[in-house]
Amino acid sequence: MINLFEKFKGFIIDLDGVIYLDKKIIPHSKKFIKYLIKAEKKYIFLTNDSTLSPDEYSKILSEQGIPCNLDQIMTPITNLLEMIKNKKIQNKDIMVFSSTKLKNYLKSLDINIIEDNNKFKKIKTIIVSGNLEFNYDDLMYASLCVQNGAKLLATSTDNTYPRKIGNVPATGSIIAAIQKTHPVSAINLGKPSKSIFNLAKKKLNIKRQDILTVGDNLNTDILGSNLSKLKSCLVLTGKTNLATAKKSKIKSDYILNNLKI
Amino acid sequence: MINLFEKFKGFIIDLDGVIYLDKKIIPHSKKFIKYLIKAEKKYIFLTNDSTLSPDEYSKILSEQGIPCNLDQIMTPITNLLEMIKNKKIQNKDIMVFSSTKLKNYLKSLDINIIEDNNKFKKIKTIIVSGNLEFNYDDLMYASLCVQNGAKLLATSTDNTYPRKIGNVPATGSIIAAIQKTHPVSAINLGKPSKSIFNLAKKKLNIKRQDILTVGDNLNTDILGSNLSKLKSCLVLTGKTNLATAKKSKIKSDYILNNLKI
Repeated sequence: MINLFEKFKGFIIDLDGVIYLDKKIIPHSKKFIKYLIKAEKKYIFLTNDSTLSPDEYSKILSEQGIPCNLDQIMTPITNLLEMIKNKKIQNKDIMVFSSTKLKNYLKSLDINIIEDNNKFKKIKTIIVSGNLEFNYDDLMYASLCVQNGAKLLATSTDNTYPRKIGNVPATGSIIAAIQKTHPVSAINLGKPSKSIFNLAKKKLNIKRQDILTVGDNLNTDILGSNLSKLKSCLVLTGKTNLATAKKSKIKSDYILNNLKI
Repeated sequence: MINLFEKFKGFIIDLDGVIYLDKKIIPHSKKFIKYLIKAEKKYIFLTNDSTLSPDEYSKILSEQGIPCNLDQIMTPITNLLEMIKNKKIQNKDIMVFSSTKLKNYLKSLDINIIEDNNKFKKIKTIIVSGNLEFNYDDLMYASLCVQNGAKLLATSTDNTYPRKIGNVPATGSIIAAIQKTHPVSAINLGKPSKSIFNLAKKKLNIKRQDILTVGDNLNTDILGSNLSKLKSCLVLTGKTNLATAKKSKIKSDYILNNLKI
């Protein structure tokens, strides 16, 4: 049997809703990755979730039978590091509004973070990432930084993420609160930004027409893929069902119920 | 000398930027209130700041030489109580996202507040008021309540309020974060809502054309006054200067540099 994937040489694959759901590996995804390896395809996992570091993702996935080295994992932080490397962001006078864990990870990467909130007037860049420790002081100092001219970087612009109790607030919701206090545009480090898809393409080192994006989210995976003129496949194992996909203005090139090979 | 105020019988007067600034009484305001009393005019203070209760406002103002009884103070909470009285809001299954102080005040008024966040599915009404204790859990449970059908009441829709360090986030900014997680409209208990101006008019018990609103904020005092077809006077002792007033689409009937009689 010929499958869709034979036509492509490189794959940009979302994690949540595609490879795993509620932290459990989706059965077909294991065989799918096995197929990619056997057929000598290249693949990169691209997630908007910065709560784990690439090292942690790589370890967890490999342990669960999804082979994946460090270079095959991309989060919005990968994009941040690339922007710093390319001098689009200066690695100086940065303030971070995120979980303590992510802040510590950024420090371990030698990001020059200022921790004293009272220095908000000298901050050039703030990085905002939705997190459970978020509080009024974060909102206030993030607002004061942008009022004083700081650039606003967001690890994603997703407004919510699904949990069993319902959709819970994500980075985009917090960005909206900051933007209500001062007119400022947010630079999105995550999907659907062109910059992160172009970086994934560059890492794959494969021609545009030979790359397929595989994701469950129309607003991030499919929209971002379309903006970067990559082919895309929506899988219905996560956030999106067929009815929603049909109603949406954002269209993927292919739709699959699951990743069954 | 004839003054503008002679023409009116009743006054709806803002506090911050009109009567006091940075918690200090503005000198002319004392003489202005003295004049109103001598001329047997009626007046009500109408503020969007719910951090103090009417009792506290009345006590503080009276101590500082601004005579004011309990009936002469209105905050968004006065409007809430009226809505409950008129059965527009049921006094049942209410969850409050505010400072502990405001929550305790509402409890003292026999508002039936549910405090167990896990009961978010049964909540019919939430009341959101910007406060320094605000955190991710508040944002999440407020969002979960409206996802499950709760009405959203806001003590104001002001996005910021001025502090010496800059403009700091207010209730409107938090409302925006909630609305990004779920499409829901907010009922504003404070200015510029028609309901609070109509309640002030009712309390004054004076004909519409004989009432003057006195405020420093175009978006709350003047807009609300215009929406309720009351005459208004912008005073330039607070948030607004003459250049801003001239540029704005929101126009007051009168502009005064201060309340000098």
